Amino acid sequence: MEIAFWGEFIGTMLLILLGNGVVANVVLNSTKGNNGGWIVITLGWGLGVFVGVLVAGPYSGAHLNPAVTFGLALAGKFDWFFVPVYIIAQLLGAMLGAMLVFLFYKDHYKVSSDQGAMLATFCTGPAIRHKARNFFCEMIGTFVLLISVFYIQGPDANIADTEVLSIGLGSVGAIPIAFVVVAIGLSLGGTTGYAINPARDLGPRFMHAILPIPGKGGSDWSYSFVPILGPLAGAVLAVLVAVSTLGL
Amino acid sequence: MEIAFWGEFIGTMLLILLGNGVVANVVLNSTKGNNGGWIVITLGWGLGVFVGVLVAGPYSGAHLNPAVTFGLALAGKFDWFFVPVYIIAQLLGAMLGAMLVFLFYKDHYKVSSDQGAMLATFCTGPAIRHKARNFFCEMIGTFVLLISVFYIQGPDANIADTEVLSIGLGSVGAIPIAFVVVAIGLSLGGTTGYAINPARDLGPRFMHAILPIPGKGGSDWSYSFVPILGPLAGAVLAVLVAVSTLGL
Amino acid sequence: MEIAFWGEFIGTMLLILLGNGVVANVVLNSTKGNNGGWIVITLGWGLGVFVGVLVAGPYSGAHLNPAVTFGLALAGKFDWFFVPVYIIAQLLGAMLGAMLVFLFYKDHYKVSSDQGAMLATFCTGPAIRHKARNFFCEMIGTFVLLISVFYIQGPDANIADTEVLSIGLGSVGAIPIAFVVVAIGLSLGGTTGYAINPARDLGPRFMHAILPIPGKGGSDWSYSFVPILGPLAGAVLAVLVAVSTLGL
Amino acid sequence: MEIAFWGEFIGTMLLILLGNGVVANVVLNSTKGNNGGWIVITLGWGLGVFVGVLVAGPYSGAHLNPAVTFGLALAGKFDWFFVPVYIIAQLLGAMLGAMLVFLFYKDHYKVSSDQGAMLATFCTGPAIRHKARNFFCEMIGTFVLLISVFYIQGPDANIADTEVLSIGLGSVGAIPIAFVVVAIGLSLGGTTGYAINPARDLGPRFMHAILPIPGKGGSDWSYSFVPILGPLAGAVLAVLVAVSTLGL
Repeated sequence: MEIAFWGEFIGTMLLILLGNGVVANVVLNSTKGNNGGWIVITLGWGLGVFVGVLVAGPYSGAHLNPAVTFGLALAGKFDWFFVPVYIIAQLLGAMLGAMLVFLFYKDHYKVSSDQGAMLATFCTGPAIRHKARNFFCEMIGTFVLLISVFYIQGPDANIADTEVLSIGLGSVGAIPIAFVVVAIGLSLGGTTGYAINPARDLGPRFMHAILPIPGKGGSDWSYSFVPILGPLAGAVLAVLVAVSTLGL
Repeated sequence: MEIAFWGEFIGTMLLILLGNGVVANVVLNSTKGNNGGWIVITLGWGLGVFVGVLVAGPYSGAHLNPAVTFGLALAGKFDWFFVPVYIIAQLLGAMLGAMLVFLFYKDHYKVSSDQGAMLATFCTGPAIRHKARNFFCEMIGTFVLLISVFYIQGPDANIADTEVLSIGLGSVGAIPIAFVVVAIGLSLGGTTGYAINPARDLGPRFMHAILPIPGKGGSDWSYSFVPILGPLAGAVLAVLVAVSTLGL
Repeated sequence: MEIAFWGEFIGTMLLILLGNGVVANVVLNSTKGNNGGWIVITLGWGLGVFVGVLVAGPYSGAHLNPAVTFGLALAGKFDWFFVPVYIIAQLLGAMLGAMLVFLFYKDHYKVSSDQGAMLATFCTGPAIRHKARNFFCEMIGTFVLLISVFYIQGPDANIADTEVLSIGLGSVGAIPIAFVVVAIGLSLGGTTGYAINPARDLGPRFMHAILPIPGKGGSDWSYSFVPILGPLAGAVLAVLVAVSTLGL
Repeated sequence: MEIAFWGEFIGTMLLILLGNGVVANVVLNSTKGNNGGWIVITLGWGLGVFVGVLVAGPYSGAHLNPAVTFGLALAGKFDWFFVPVYIIAQLLGAMLGAMLVFLFYKDHYKVSSDQGAMLATFCTGPAIRHKARNFFCEMIGTFVLLISVFYIQGPDANIADTEVLSIGLGSVGAIPIAFVVVAIGLSLGGTTGYAINPARDLGPRFMHAILPIPGKGGSDWSYSFVPILGPLAGAVLAVLVAVSTLGL
């Protein structure tokens, strides 16, 4: 179990370091990737997932996302006993990743003044605020992620603490899930910025609240439940659809 | 057969959710991917195919396209008896996918006023209207798709209702067809917007006609036969070329 | 041999249809991909190679390029006897591909008036005209292509007329060469537009000369030997380097 | 050993030819890829790594980077005795690659006047000069690279002079490391331009100093230790993290 904890912790740290890093590179002032566009954001997040899965895969199965952990447990593919351990590792990893992005781009935070852009380098926010719709968007985006995870894993996957996921294709096996995340970003990221992962949003939002970011605004806590509950609802939906139609 | 129906239905739904989703993200107002450019559109569609094939592949062979189903039947690789079932599943899946995109981006439809852009989030339309040429373009684009499908599958593939396509490389095996669709989009999407799939166009066009989209214009039914008949003609051409030159 | 001829013919036709197609989509007026940028051009060409290799690979080994055929023969990996057959198939395929692009985008040629852009949808031209340097650029670009081909194939590859290249990874095995071509385009395409293939340039240039393109200018025949001889020189260089340093 | 020397030399030469080549294509005047954006730069560098690994992999294990060589030796996976040989080959290869880029784009250097842009086609420089932070950024970027290398190789990899790395997946096996480098570029390249490789920066910087570049400025030697020592510190950090948490 200990090694799975470190896998989730380091994997999620890398996911957020690269994922929030690309947002910082695109939206903060004076960076080399400034104004790089949606293609840079979505490829950066997708390849952040790729690196996280690459590193964590053999040790923890690379959930890196409480919605994945919850969905796999709900589908009977992961032991509920380990769910809290995984989620704690994911949250702590996401917090460390967000802190590293702040230290990495600190000189660029100093020369930026757009509070919304600075918050966006930590957590998600809606393009148009409408909590019910935003919740629906996070649910649908996570549904696409989870149903893909179920099918990438195959019907017989069952990950316990003493087992490690063996991906026959080695590091190449981490490509499909990265492509799924790029797909979700390109197509379904336009409304809420696709958290599709409660730890990805909550951990960094907490860091935004406590870090001494120059000229920062509020952390928008009133929105924070959307990228937590929406993804969990999406996981439930994916389990229901997979079980009822395709006989997961 | 039932599981193949659900495979086609869910796979085509995901294809349209992601494919039409990326168009909505790029062309509707106030989205995060607004004005993302042709690279975003084409990668989004290609990765939509990737996700659809990933999920439907083991259950139905992932046709997701009446032109593929028709072409495989014409080539003697798919039982004509199941052709109507597949096509109905594809049409229904495409309709559900289009409805989900509308619900997903509804707040952005409200703040958009370009009727052509709104229609483009459902179905295709020509850059320069010239039905014979537009038909030719859809035929050639689909020819590239189908001839690639034949060669990706290999000469011995034969999918019946009780069989499931086994892709030896697992989820990585869904990458080549996605790259083919990106190629068609980048290179041959410039004239008609590459429907290359009758269900992809007809199902969402019907939804455009019946959904209560604020400020929508007409559904351009006079063009609708082009993205239906053009792809079917392309399938015939691909079968002819494959059989007569390379001995499919 | 006959099947190898058709493989090279159809593969090169697809390569040019998609490769010249993406240029037409980006540079002609009123297209959906107009002004899509260098990333669209280079991905379109790379994925054109992908589709060509996918289709022709099992039948002819997918040279699709006289410089590849010549280099493999020079390295003792391909029978000189079949070199003319392959090169004729490649030239004819490139000519057909160029003609299809013209028919495909004909309405957009009609509304375009930039003669340089129209020529660019057929064949390459230098950003800064300096024949010795342009020759050097085509030589270096093709050197990178050929040395990659040698290593992708492995030291024991030897393709004869009755053999077909078996790529163990199926259609996924066509990805590396496509990535090499994208790399060359992104990095070394900035000077001459990376012909790196005599058939890719000569066949379409001939079609430019004879097709009734509205308002076309000259076919720049004085430059045409650069993208023919440069790639052949690059093939010689790649064979020399591979043999003398790494013991091909 | 001799063949490993040539592998590192040619592999690093290709890496710099393509990597610095894409920068030249984007920042120099009158090139076809001028102003292509961050996506072009980062894909070009990543695919430069792809080609270098493809070619050098079977001969030297494709380190192509003193930080990789140093990190593998520190982790007990590479013989210290061969470290100097590898680093010399990498430096010489990087110098040759930089010289080739200069010859390749020479006509474009002549029509460019931005001394900073010209220097950027050789070596890295910070967006905001702050040596401690720049060092930290190079350290973190290289940490991500090295920890990925450890996990891509797997725990049992051990490369000696008489062995060659066999990548079971053939040339497809070079994709993951290329994706890691694209990820680092997209997300962590915004501050210092991600040298993450002492040879990549020092070799070309030396060539900038000695080549007769028209109108060139200084070679910024005062910054040069950052992209040398930062990557080495990142390698140490990656070894410490891998050993202490995941039991490398």
